[in-house]
Amino acid sequence: MDDERRPDLAAMMVPLGRILMAAEEPVLRAHDLTMWAYAVLYALDDRPLRNQSALAQSIGADKTRIIGVLDGLQERGLIRREPDPADRRAHLVSLTPEGRRLRDAAQAAIQEREDRLLARLPENERRAFLRALRTLHAVPRDEILGDL
Amino acid sequence: MDDERRPDLAAMMVPLGRILMAAEEPVLRAHDLTMWAYAVLYALDDRPLRNQSALAQSIGADKTRIIGVLDGLQERGLIRREPDPADRRAHLVSLTPEGRRLRDAAQAAIQEREDRLLARLPENERRAFLRALRTLHAVPRDEILGDL
Repeated sequence: MDDERRPDLAAMMVPLGRILMAAEEPVLRAHDLTMWAYAVLYALDDRPLRNQSALAQSIGADKTRIIGVLDGLQERGLIRREPDPADRRAHLVSLTPEGRRLRDAAQAAIQEREDRLLARLPENERRAFLRALRTLHAVPRDEILGDL
Repeated sequence: MDDERRPDLAAMMVPLGRILMAAEEPVLRAHDLTMWAYAVLYALDDRPLRNQSALAQSIGADKTRIIGVLDGLQERGLIRREPDPADRRAHLVSLTPEGRRLRDAAQAAIQEREDRLLARLPENERRAFLRALRTLHAVPRDEILGDL
């Protein structure tokens, strides 16, 4: 029985996530990006055009905070904001080519570091781990909370 | 190339960790425990006797915050605090039998929910995922940060 006992998932995942975020900090600084700025560039890569509120929600920021981040990115020519033709009160946000280059460079450096950590796992286990993490990450939040 | 692209580890693990913590909230409330109180009981289970500062550090709380939590747990008879015979300025903290029972009950309920999420993974992948997570979680923070 005691052999089968495992640590709580949350108790393993939360501190590990925090360490991985701390490990990103020097990389982001080297690319002149804050964590929030990177979160925006990261979110935009998946889905090129988003309205501002959806973007804020998807990165877990409140709308007030994200507006300053978007202003800074736009001044640096990394993103573009345009009125949404379908809804004039909303804005669509997209990466500029320069924004995509910076994002790709920062992400490559981050993942290179993450890969060094993952290299501690045997090849098969590493693949299974990443596959499982993608599956679990793709489960909608409400479904997990309802289910659990 | 694009096929091989994966999301950032941190970008998967941090939101998933937050959802798992949110899922714990109703369970903890049902056991009349706050997140910090559970974190203390959880940490004590692994290593029965700890001094207060080490305990605060291990759960990522500052010492000021943890003292109130420990007071509350002690009043409820869930933990015991005694002067450390090896160092009179320090206190050793341990679970009472009642504290261990409550901790075990809360943990069982939390893990039952987590298992429902893990059930979305094929059996082999689930095992590999948990094994990998334990391995990565056991790597000391400084080693990860230095390495990465």
